[in-house]
Amino acid sequence: MSRLVMKFGGTSVANVERIRNVARHVKREVDAGREVAVVVSAMSGKTNELVGWCKEAAPLYDQKEYDAVVASGEQVTAGLLAIALQEIGVPARSWLGWQAPICTNDTHGSARIESIDGAGIIDGFSRGEVAVVAGFQGVHKESGRITTLGRGGSDTSAVALAAAIHADRCDIYTDVDGVYTTDPRVVPKARRMDRVAFEEMLEMASLGAKVLQVRSVEVAMVHKVPTYVRSSFDDPANPGEGTLICNEEDIVEAQVVTGIAFSRDEAQITLRRVADKPGVAAAVFMPLAEAGINVDMIVQVVSEDGNTDMTFTVGSADYERAYALLEKIKDDIGFASMAGAKDVAKVSAIGIGMRSHAGVAARAFRALSERGVNIRAITTSEIKFSVLIDEAYTELAVRTLHSLYGLDAA
Amino acid sequence: MSRLVMKFGGTSVANVERIRNVARHVKREVDAGREVAVVVSAMSGKTNELVGWCKEAAPLYDQKEYDAVVASGEQVTAGLLAIALQEIGVPARSWLGWQAPICTNDTHGSARIESIDGAGIIDGFSRGEVAVVAGFQGVHKESGRITTLGRGGSDTSAVALAAAIHADRCDIYTDVDGVYTTDPRVVPKARRMDRVAFEEMLEMASLGAKVLQVRSVEVAMVHKVPTYVRSSFDDPANPGEGTLICNEEDIVEAQVVTGIAFSRDEAQITLRRVADKPGVAAAVFMPLAEAGINVDMIVQVVSEDGNTDMTFTVGSADYERAYALLEKIKDDIGFASMAGAKDVAKVSAIGIGMRSHAGVAARAFRALSERGVNIRAITTSEIKFSVLIDEAYTELAVRTLHSLYGLDAA
Repeated sequence: MSRLVMKFGGTSVANVERIRNVARHVKREVDAGREVAVVVSAMSGKTNELVGWCKEAAPLYDQKEYDAVVASGEQVTAGLLAIALQEIGVPARSWLGWQAPICTNDTHGSARIESIDGAGIIDGFSRGEVAVVAGFQGVHKESGRITTLGRGGSDTSAVALAAAIHADRCDIYTDVDGVYTTDPRVVPKARRMDRVAFEEMLEMASLGAKVLQVRSVEVAMVHKVPTYVRSSFDDPANPGEGTLICNEEDIVEAQVVTGIAFSRDEAQITLRRVADKPGVAAAVFMPLAEAGINVDMIVQVVSEDGNTDMTFTVGSADYERAYALLEKIKDDIGFASMAGAKDVAKVSAIGIGMRSHAGVAARAFRALSERGVNIRAITTSEIKFSVLIDEAYTELAVRTLHSLYGLDAA
Repeated sequence: MSRLVMKFGGTSVANVERIRNVARHVKREVDAGREVAVVVSAMSGKTNELVGWCKEAAPLYDQKEYDAVVASGEQVTAGLLAIALQEIGVPARSWLGWQAPICTNDTHGSARIESIDGAGIIDGFSRGEVAVVAGFQGVHKESGRITTLGRGGSDTSAVALAAAIHADRCDIYTDVDGVYTTDPRVVPKARRMDRVAFEEMLEMASLGAKVLQVRSVEVAMVHKVPTYVRSSFDDPANPGEGTLICNEEDIVEAQVVTGIAFSRDEAQITLRRVADKPGVAAAVFMPLAEAGINVDMIVQVVSEDGNTDMTFTVGSADYERAYALLEKIKDDIGFASMAGAKDVAKVSAIGIGMRSHAGVAARAFRALSERGVNIRAITTSEIKFSVLIDEAYTELAVRTLHSLYGLDAA
């Protein structure tokens, strides 16, 4: 008998009528003879409401209490979906994070799953029972306190549960019908991909594609859980196709470039006339790391007089904090001046085929320069490259690369 | 060091601003050197919203899932109050029903508390920590499922917790400032009582006074928990007086009648010409009991021809069901016809002093008849008597008895 995890996000369970629709999707899979666990998010808007109350009670709220408050959102949806399933004749019960249990570490607010005990859920399967699992939440076993996985964590709950109960597939139902070659709102000719490799999806999610949470793709890749992104707005009786995230080997016709991702949540900081001496990079980047600020692209240009200009990017949410921190330790580092910009964007091309094809990035640099797009920084890895550009050129750059690599729909 | 349980209902925690006000009440007690556990209800309106969703998902919803959904309301308030307390410098943590744990039987939707493990909460006291306990909920230990105690169950949570942790007192904060001799909306001259005995309060709550849930008074009486009803709308820095529910011995000047209660949620059923033979009462009342319908007042009048008219009351919510059931088993019982009325009310006088004073009820019958109030049925017990009258005369009867027994404020 095949075993399936289905995950439904906030817009898919926004009200009781939508929850009933989800129940019909689940019934279809049960009727097809599958053992089904369903992971649900909070009704859309609920999490924001709960977070708002925490902030109102105290701007710097206790993360442990925040978790207890916010986890209630998924608890409600799980119970309601179990009721809706029973109502259409599908035996079901809800499982909260502490009940399964889904054990996490104690990093409240952004905990990581350490282990899932699927025995109770599998036992339910043997009685013909659908398991409705509250996403986004777990429990820290030593303290017995509720934890949450951080925003978007329900995707991770679903994939980790699929790994734990050895499901054949994890279906992520969302408000789009799959993973596209790029954002269709920017490039109308963007195409839905039938398949995409775990590694590619991981890069896409990391580089700005919002369809799946990065951590969930990591978990899917590590545990080789085939993950299918599909639309919850399809007719439950006759659903359409989606995108399967799978092993590289299962993709017959690999393309050089599979997709174009972009992110406007970038900020650039430039330190001018940094002393070009050993240990200076550490003096800059260690304090940022200790403050929990991720640095992404780094470019260093050595000037003739033995000094160097150092440019790097941070997430725009961290920009002010990074700037202030560097100002404070200016004398320790030793630089002449600092400049920053928030109106920058990162555009990336991803494809496993890059491994075996030389000059993929070089073609992009030429095409962008021909269209007058100034490249501020570049990073490359085995299966992707990224360029940092002025934000105003984002759409132009994305469309240029999408066409360049033959991704436009016919 | 004295130990206190404080309980705040839905209107007292209706929004974050009100929750902050509750935090100030708690801080006052902590500053006075007390160890404090606070029991909270859901924000007012939340429980109704959650119940509404369950009903929308399935009219006959699963009580187990209902409990998981509805218990989320108190979970939110507990977390928010813990945050609000921390914000004003009071160390605090939330405790959900399954965390303490508060163990109940498995009667989902109206579970009874079987035991409370207060060890974790008392351990927190030793670290100077206030325990914020989600009311209304518990856990069934064998199944590990969330249970709820039924409407108003947070009062019971509070009193049971006070018993479990050997608190010196349980303070029930509500939207009125105590227990009154009767409903002040009906009798403007009603007075707040300083003290009332457990037994009297139990009768008052059972007979229609809505200030405390009956079950909570039972628990307070059995475990001898002094319970203080007071207003959450008082200035936290300078709170007013309330009503202490305590042992009879602690009331210096007992009155013959302490209070007048009334209930309009009554319905009357009369069976005419019932065969006056052994076993006929069982034939009527056993089927009703088996259907979970409580019968309250019973009056039997034997006629000259050996038949009898039997009148009794049920809760108005059960009226239609009781009527239909009796119609169905009419031939088994053997009666000529049936009549019913929903426009009846029960007015009761309660007082421990009745035990030692004869003729207390007789004075009432005379006073009511002098005012033209027709008495349809009477029941008496050691410390109360009740009369069933036409609903239209409720206010008149309540005022008459309130004056008769000297309860009017000067």
